[in-house]
Amino acid sequence: MAGSTKDIDALIELMARLPGLGPRSARRAVLHLIRKRALLLTPLADLMGQVAATARECLNCGNVGTSDICDICTDERRATGELCVVEDVADLWAMERSGVFKGRYHVLGGTLSALDGVGPEELRIPRLADRVTAESISEVILALNATIDGQTTAHYIADQLGGRVRLTSLAQGVPIGGELDYLDDGTISAAMRARKDL
Amino acid sequence: MAGSTKDIDALIELMARLPGLGPRSARRAVLHLIRKRALLLTPLADLMGQVAATARECLNCGNVGTSDICDICTDERRATGELCVVEDVADLWAMERSGVFKGRYHVLGGTLSALDGVGPEELRIPRLADRVTAESISEVILALNATIDGQTTAHYIADQLGGRVRLTSLAQGVPIGGELDYLDDGTISAAMRARKDL
Repeated sequence: MAGSTKDIDALIELMARLPGLGPRSARRAVLHLIRKRALLLTPLADLMGQVAATARECLNCGNVGTSDICDICTDERRATGELCVVEDVADLWAMERSGVFKGRYHVLGGTLSALDGVGPEELRIPRLADRVTAESISEVILALNATIDGQTTAHYIADQLGGRVRLTSLAQGVPIGGELDYLDDGTISAAMRARKDL
Repeated sequence: MAGSTKDIDALIELMARLPGLGPRSARRAVLHLIRKRALLLTPLADLMGQVAATARECLNCGNVGTSDICDICTDERRATGELCVVEDVADLWAMERSGVFKGRYHVLGGTLSALDGVGPEELRIPRLADRVTAESISEVILALNATIDGQTTAHYIADQLGGRVRLTSLAQGVPIGGELDYLDDGTISAAMRARKDL
């Protein structure tokens, strides 16, 4: 793009490839970075370099961290015996923010998808079965997304592990603060079927 | 945030400070960066470091580049005598993308604003008057935003330069591809007043 220089243009182009940013917001972001050079641009460059050098997937569970085995897998205060299966690292982080689960995780790295040619071997499903045995897991909680692919994956895992371990999945219902008027029919049906006595 | 590590958390926090990104999209972006380490994260870290080291404001016009005087100011093919005044560098880049203007620019760095305490000295207005004389400018094109602050600034500049130079401003009217139904009243009025014979 005329008006700026080669490096700045290249930076805008790379930034525009981030999810959530397009060409226009990438230009705004880069101008903002240049204006806040000491506060933002230099620290960001350093941190990105550091993360690029050290980030890796946990060999055990698939979480992202800076060591071969992640902080959660090595944390002895975490309950052993409970394994929460999630689709990807963002879901693991979301579970951790809620603070509700004290066990360990297993990140599949996606969902089974016939259309995209994703089979069990592309995911960490064989490794899940291994862990259930090796770590004497008593309960596997399937925290997969409530999508068709997510539910297909949940059924496949249930088939694989069937009988060897207690299998549970997250409850479906009305989200906290949710208004019925804005919820889809499927959620309302699920909440109705799973209604509880007061 | 539990679940990841110190460096990754710090990176997410910095990314969330970019315009257009919030905490959630910053997390998504960082996971994307880690997954595309060789293609995206490492080149981005390098480029950011380079831009942090070299980016500077053009001493002449206020454009952002990597030398004391920017590529546009040093380009001898650009028409001298015409100066296009814009509020900020993003506006200059937008003008350049259109390719319609072959002269040089003057970036004010904002607009006059009594509320925010921005006076002529906080902007590059005194420098604009100097350039008009020093560079024998014959026409100053005010390409300021059609906002109250932008128009106040335009009037102030017109007062300052009055009589010394031809002053013009961008035409106002219906944008190309614009539908009347979606335009504000002010734009329709301006387009009506400035109507042209076919």
